[in-house]
Amino acid sequence: MTEPALDGLVDALRHLPGVGAKSAQRIAFHLLQHDRGGAQRLASALTHALQDMRHCVRCHTFTEAEVCSTCLDPRRDARQLCVVETPADQAALERSGSFKGLYFVLMGRISPLDGVGVGDIGAIRLLERAADGVVEEVILATGFTAEGEVTAHALATALRAQGLKVTRLARGVPAGSELEYVDLSTIAHAMGDRR
Amino acid sequence: MTEPALDGLVDALRHLPGVGAKSAQRIAFHLLQHDRGGAQRLASALTHALQDMRHCVRCHTFTEAEVCSTCLDPRRDARQLCVVETPADQAALERSGSFKGLYFVLMGRISPLDGVGVGDIGAIRLLERAADGVVEEVILATGFTAEGEVTAHALATALRAQGLKVTRLARGVPAGSELEYVDLSTIAHAMGDRR
Repeated sequence: MTEPALDGLVDALRHLPGVGAKSAQRIAFHLLQHDRGGAQRLASALTHALQDMRHCVRCHTFTEAEVCSTCLDPRRDARQLCVVETPADQAALERSGSFKGLYFVLMGRISPLDGVGVGDIGAIRLLERAADGVVEEVILATGFTAEGEVTAHALATALRAQGLKVTRLARGVPAGSELEYVDLSTIAHAMGDRR
Repeated sequence: MTEPALDGLVDALRHLPGVGAKSAQRIAFHLLQHDRGGAQRLASALTHALQDMRHCVRCHTFTEAEVCSTCLDPRRDARQLCVVETPADQAALERSGSFKGLYFVLMGRISPLDGVGVGDIGAIRLLERAADGVVEEVILATGFTAEGEVTAHALATALRAQGLKVTRLARGVPAGSELEYVDLSTIAHAMGDRR
């Protein structure tokens, strides 16, 4: 069974993150057998997104316009700039309803093992953006992983050198957790940052 | 953040089997940010497969030709016809190297709960195929699940009524298993079918 069109589809699916060889085959058969409309929609959504999506010139997130709708929203507080790793992190913060300022999306994080340095995550663009004379506080909301912490540390150093106020999301016990099941480093941080 | 092109892509990905809302978002960001070439390849692989893949007129599997390469292979034993649920099952049998006959691919199985009856799985086509005067034995290799068993039972009844020899893959203890960890129904079948 060597069918180039089928093999090509399975191979293209297998390169999606989180999709292994078996899933790729299952997805390909499903699309061809049961959801040809879905396959058509996916093909045109991919083409459409590749054509139309670019980076917001202000916050660097994905957008179809030159400046994204969040950056253009006059109700947002332009004095606060929250730095996140990905649009998904931004979306999570938006859902929390806890932040009304503007964002800067790194589209990555420093990862020495993967050869991703501070120059690869739009740090210079961030420094320019934060130096607009309106931003007063930069809130670093990169992940609380080793790589997220390295990224936050590097950015904090550079931003403070520009005289900006730099803060970091608080670490602590997640809502709904029983202390018994929270890892010790989190408890130690929550104790240190108690208020 | 409402970007129709991005939302459309996430939505199309979310309809793939085994891909949830979070994975869909992660895949979309990955493709746009890190693998635009992969996105392009996937879009054209989908279009290509939708255009070119059809069903083999003999065994009903996916193929680009009228008759698939397996059905055309003169070295295969046309007296044995193995019935499987999917091309993936056929591929697994081929990898095992244990069968040199021809296949019939149901592209499904009887599933009363999903409203899939015997008429929906190409049973009539199978009966015609098996009545070619060359096929002597039909080996039912549908899954050993409730639905696979129902399918095998229904097909066996119809095929035997045509005077064909019908067999079923043996049930038993999987290679490499310790008996201790094998489920009791499998052990009971392996004992019953001992040889």
